[in-house]
Amino acid sequence: MSRFWSDVNKRLSPYTPGEQPRNKKYIKLNTNENPYPPSPGVIAAIEKNLNGSLRLYPDPSCEELRTAIAEYYNLKKEQVYAGNGSDELLAFAFLAFFNPGGPRILFPDITYSFYKVYAALLKIDYELVLLDDDFSIHPEMFFKNNGGVIIANPNAPTGKFLPLESVADILEHNSSKVVIIDEAYIDFGGDSAVGLIEKYPNLLVIQTFSKSRALAGLRVGFALGREELIEGLDRIKNSVNSYTLDRLSLAGAIAAIEDDAYFQYVRRKITASRERVSGELREIGFKVIPSMANFIFITHPFIPAAELFLKLKGKGILVRYFKEPGIDNYLRVSIGTDEEMDLFTGALKEIPGI
Amino acid sequence: MSRFWSDVNKRLSPYTPGEQPRNKKYIKLNTNENPYPPSPGVIAAIEKNLNGSLRLYPDPSCEELRTAIAEYYNLKKEQVYAGNGSDELLAFAFLAFFNPGGPRILFPDITYSFYKVYAALLKIDYELVLLDDDFSIHPEMFFKNNGGVIIANPNAPTGKFLPLESVADILEHNSSKVVIIDEAYIDFGGDSAVGLIEKYPNLLVIQTFSKSRALAGLRVGFALGREELIEGLDRIKNSVNSYTLDRLSLAGAIAAIEDDAYFQYVRRKITASRERVSGELREIGFKVIPSMANFIFITHPFIPAAELFLKLKGKGILVRYFKEPGIDNYLRVSIGTDEEMDLFTGALKEIPGI
Repeated sequence: MSRFWSDVNKRLSPYTPGEQPRNKKYIKLNTNENPYPPSPGVIAAIEKNLNGSLRLYPDPSCEELRTAIAEYYNLKKEQVYAGNGSDELLAFAFLAFFNPGGPRILFPDITYSFYKVYAALLKIDYELVLLDDDFSIHPEMFFKNNGGVIIANPNAPTGKFLPLESVADILEHNSSKVVIIDEAYIDFGGDSAVGLIEKYPNLLVIQTFSKSRALAGLRVGFALGREELIEGLDRIKNSVNSYTLDRLSLAGAIAAIEDDAYFQYVRRKITASRERVSGELREIGFKVIPSMANFIFITHPFIPAAELFLKLKGKGILVRYFKEPGIDNYLRVSIGTDEEMDLFTGALKEIPGI
Repeated sequence: MSRFWSDVNKRLSPYTPGEQPRNKKYIKLNTNENPYPPSPGVIAAIEKNLNGSLRLYPDPSCEELRTAIAEYYNLKKEQVYAGNGSDELLAFAFLAFFNPGGPRILFPDITYSFYKVYAALLKIDYELVLLDDDFSIHPEMFFKNNGGVIIANPNAPTGKFLPLESVADILEHNSSKVVIIDEAYIDFGGDSAVGLIEKYPNLLVIQTFSKSRALAGLRVGFALGREELIEGLDRIKNSVNSYTLDRLSLAGAIAAIEDDAYFQYVRRKITASRERVSGELREIGFKVIPSMANFIFITHPFIPAAELFLKLKGKGILVRYFKEPGIDNYLRVSIGTDEEMDLFTGALKEIPGI
């Protein structure tokens, strides 16, 4: 604490990102990274952009990337916003569409923990919507007066997918408020809400290149929605930092979106690994929440998750443990390569009691 | 305007970045980019980091880059913050240290136009401190009750440098408030306030790799100050976006700071060009504000700046014109290569009346 900090800064509880080990070599199943490299086209595109242009500012409106994303999703360029990872987009969206002092915004009580952090930073009041014991979202719980809605779909850290009819129901019952569907993990089996944009002007879909397109290291996210929502995000960006995406990230992201064959190959591979590992874990006694993401959320009937976390770490395997009410007996495990997942299940089987 | 925008969004007047022409080829003297490429070491470092790691998140705490910057400025790593360009850092600093509803913050009435935008976004009240007719800052105008101070030094778009004794005076008279010295253009002849950090816990110095290190396309800025101020910035970052710098920007920036010989060579070259062109412009009748930046601020006694701006654009030369009270008869001209500057002065001489 410092006397120089602003009042809001003094009260913040910032987000804690998953551990990025620098010295020891771990099997890293803790931050939902893609175990496969990005499309070879990405590297080639960046190399091509390396010489001659780095001294110049990038295009602040990201026209080319937005055009490429728009074409992929059959939208107009004006319906696409591109930014520095989906976290930055989420922060901008809170600023753009939610009001401090207004009615409370709604989000599930178990979800991406950054939502609470944005709300605290921007003094936006929120109400946590309870999930049921299986971590399912009940749409009707969102049919009440509010200042906006945000739902991760699939949800994190549970991996549970909310069917599109339920998403449409929530949009329908909140037509005067912005409903953000955070689809960071949508490419691993879920159906995107992007097709609902035409019908619902209050829908903002947020996605990222960090997971399914294997570019966590480049920091690129995007938002899809009606022109007026995209313009609203753009106004915030141009009040914070006009150039959030650098030249190399722009070039790499364009190449990634253009290589659809590779994208389909990788996401199918990860989905297949997830299903296989989920089955194996159930066989050795774990409860595995059915996942539509590139991670699984698991619990063991006898051995506490905190203990499993430490034992796995001791064996060189990093997974994510959240010491939070309702989920503190679960582990979130990213889907790695098949080899990594075999080492993971192998390590579990060595633990007495499993 | 959209019914979905938040109240603050409806009232914003976002920043307008300088034109980035996409189709026509201009001599680009409008956004203060460096006319020379970055250090060759930058390209090599990025190439080295291209393979294998892009799928992984970058280090959110930017340890290596902060260590390299700290060594360069003889500080501790904990006294360095690294972020996505100095614009983002400025926005974070406003959030970290200035209070909405508190006493008004102070900055010069003619300065970087983004300061007003941050203040509007964050509802921070401000008072504009008048400059004299020669655009000089009078330190005693900052000796009054306030909520914080921000000064660009050298100032933009004037290029005028405020001597370090005056900076120290302002720090001394505002010991309970954060004083931000925005040194985006410090490497072209001015003395950095970095040496004052030891004496003044209220000093935050902000710099960028975009100008003197020729990396506008990579988006890297940094802040220097006491540990408690850096921690304050870090808390804001971790409440907005934990990973603002991607892997390639980190690698490139480290290489740039390590190549001091190249840095010294480039900044001296630009400074020499600036002095030569300033002299030539004075010879043909222009008033040139003495500049310590990589741009000059010029006015002609008879021909309006708006007219000169359009005529130069017609001749394929882009400079920056601000249609704002007090400076609407001036042009801001970035220092390009000697060849570009000769084309610029040559084009001016063709204009009737010069």
